[in-house]
Amino acid sequence: MRRVAVIGVGMTKFGEHWEKSIRELIVEAGARAIEDAGIHGRDIEAIYGANMSAGRFANQEHIGALIADHMGLVPKPTVRLEAACASGGVAFREGYIAVASGAYDMVVVGGVEKMTDVLTEEAASILGLAGDYEWEVFKGATFPTLYALMARRHMHEYGTTEEQLAMVAVKNHENAVLNPFAQFRKRISVEDVLASPVIASPLKLLDCSPLSDGAAAVVLASEEKVRELKIDTPVWIRASAQASDTLALHDRKDLTTLLATRVAAEQAYKQAKVEPKDIDVAEVHDCFTIAEILAIEDLGFFKKGEGGKAVEEGQTARNAKISVNTSGGLKACGHPVGATGVKQIVELTLQLRGDAGERQVTRAELGLAHNVGGSGATCVVHILSR
Amino acid sequence: MRRVAVIGVGMTKFGEHWEKSIRELIVEAGARAIEDAGIHGRDIEAIYGANMSAGRFANQEHIGALIADHMGLVPKPTVRLEAACASGGVAFREGYIAVASGAYDMVVVGGVEKMTDVLTEEAASILGLAGDYEWEVFKGATFPTLYALMARRHMHEYGTTEEQLAMVAVKNHENAVLNPFAQFRKRISVEDVLASPVIASPLKLLDCSPLSDGAAAVVLASEEKVRELKIDTPVWIRASAQASDTLALHDRKDLTTLLATRVAAEQAYKQAKVEPKDIDVAEVHDCFTIAEILAIEDLGFFKKGEGGKAVEEGQTARNAKISVNTSGGLKACGHPVGATGVKQIVELTLQLRGDAGERQVTRAELGLAHNVGGSGATCVVHILSR
Repeated sequence: MRRVAVIGVGMTKFGEHWEKSIRELIVEAGARAIEDAGIHGRDIEAIYGANMSAGRFANQEHIGALIADHMGLVPKPTVRLEAACASGGVAFREGYIAVASGAYDMVVVGGVEKMTDVLTEEAASILGLAGDYEWEVFKGATFPTLYALMARRHMHEYGTTEEQLAMVAVKNHENAVLNPFAQFRKRISVEDVLASPVIASPLKLLDCSPLSDGAAAVVLASEEKVRELKIDTPVWIRASAQASDTLALHDRKDLTTLLATRVAAEQAYKQAKVEPKDIDVAEVHDCFTIAEILAIEDLGFFKKGEGGKAVEEGQTARNAKISVNTSGGLKACGHPVGATGVKQIVELTLQLRGDAGERQVTRAELGLAHNVGGSGATCVVHILSR
Repeated sequence: MRRVAVIGVGMTKFGEHWEKSIRELIVEAGARAIEDAGIHGRDIEAIYGANMSAGRFANQEHIGALIADHMGLVPKPTVRLEAACASGGVAFREGYIAVASGAYDMVVVGGVEKMTDVLTEEAASILGLAGDYEWEVFKGATFPTLYALMARRHMHEYGTTEEQLAMVAVKNHENAVLNPFAQFRKRISVEDVLASPVIASPLKLLDCSPLSDGAAAVVLASEEKVRELKIDTPVWIRASAQASDTLALHDRKDLTTLLATRVAAEQAYKQAKVEPKDIDVAEVHDCFTIAEILAIEDLGFFKKGEGGKAVEEGQTARNAKISVNTSGGLKACGHPVGATGVKQIVELTLQLRGDAGERQVTRAELGLAHNVGGSGATCVVHILSR
């Protein structure tokens, strides 16, 4: 397989875009990525689009064709990939494999979701389609409930506290303040989180990522193409790994670890020939605060059970032991589900290139993206480097 | 890119499976493909799942994970691909690219759709999400309407007759009688078609493919793996090509040709170093009878405008000039949209291996699969050989 690099990135601001359709979000992010790469649309050979549920959120399937059409890229091949909230990660992975294979020299990977055109209750129900609908949401277990079960068990087994959960949100909001594309650019305190309405105990409103509209896109190119185009700051894909788990939470042996994260991470470290301690900056899937704690443990940054303590000690803040979710994460940057996995790559690319502005970390040589679908039935891990 | 072969195929009967869930359909087809390949589930390295709209038809997204879970393939990587009715074709293409790249040595590509659990009117609306929902279905133009416009224009420009359209359905029903997995194993006459209720003039009920439930799966392996497993009858993928067109019909220059079919076909013939006249057996996308006429012209089997005449002359019957839709096609074998593109590969594989039973064609060395999404916004063409 050939080496592949990210040569351009772009995204919309994440948030409530009542004035923009899914089509406009796609074009805005896609055009920015193409401009950032310094190429023309005609140079793109194929499109890998990520979207979870436009069929429900926006009354439109065939999202690959929608992207090609509205980006003016007809008749290029285009496809949509879906793995719930990991749609962006799997699309990035398949785009990478296609370029690595030699099928294409240059592709764009884009992710989009428009979630705020439906009622909040309906959105919660649609997001439930990421889990085992028949056994979970249909019985009333929406996603906050499922992650609340994981949080309760983690608290029971390891003494993780509600304050520690809250500190994940506080840190991610802190980072988002410095990200012009983030949905919530506002500091919050542990007290704010603890005082916010209970959604599914122990998770409160401010432990949860929001409903968001947004899109993100990246341009991938083969090593030959990177040289040909004289790209100054290619960001290389050093590892791409993916794993699955049971769709339903009740079929798992352990609620305090995501098997798919552990399997994918192990493979990714092996591919890149690096260890967890070598990672400088990581975008991890914090759909709920407990999810970030599970992630930093399952990815090997901290020992199982010590994630809460690590957050409390500030080890995951910018420029601490490992900078986690410098974008603001799903919690504060926002979580338009199909776009999230691609946004993680956008953020890592900016950090590794030294283009992350006010939130730039001082040492950014190796970055890791961790994107989860549902309650962990899909996990994708990518490792990038300068 | 490495050579890749189809080494196992399986499908459910297509039809109305009110007694089976989407999960059971997946397992039935998948298990048959794995058994046919003579391998074990543990030998599979990844899953490429095709599905158009389970989010709407079956209240479930995250279909890749659903497949891995219910096939007992956790923690293998799994992803769902969607390009409306071409979902199966694009999943097969991405599975092929992944094996050709060296990312995996053996994968399964499966497609599924469960369409009969919703009301017929709702199903028509869901299928409309394959087109440009905002400009087409929302205004009342469901898919029969769009293809009726193409049929009218083809009749106007080339003198194609309603009888010729009907003959496509008659031929495909004739083939389906010999296919134990087909939905409609029943002969019909031109008079039956002409006398059936008008859906969108000139298309009548019997010009239209049905709503169907079903699944299909194929196992793909690298050349090394084919040798290692001593596969007797590998069917090689000689070409894989894909193209796109505008989502909405009104944005096209010509209603009597599908640009995406022409672009993809041209690339596929070039890759395989063959010409249209070399193809012995073809599965083409006959969602409506007019679609098969467009396909056999756009694929270069017959000149533009002469497709209707070719059908009338019997040139597309089994063992005539080219055997088209020996499975019965979408029209008579059935059209569970996510499964259709994969079923086309199942049929070609059986024909090329000489395993097609009563419907076996006498000469089957080169086969072509043609899978269309929406009214032509996606087209995938594959060429297979022994």
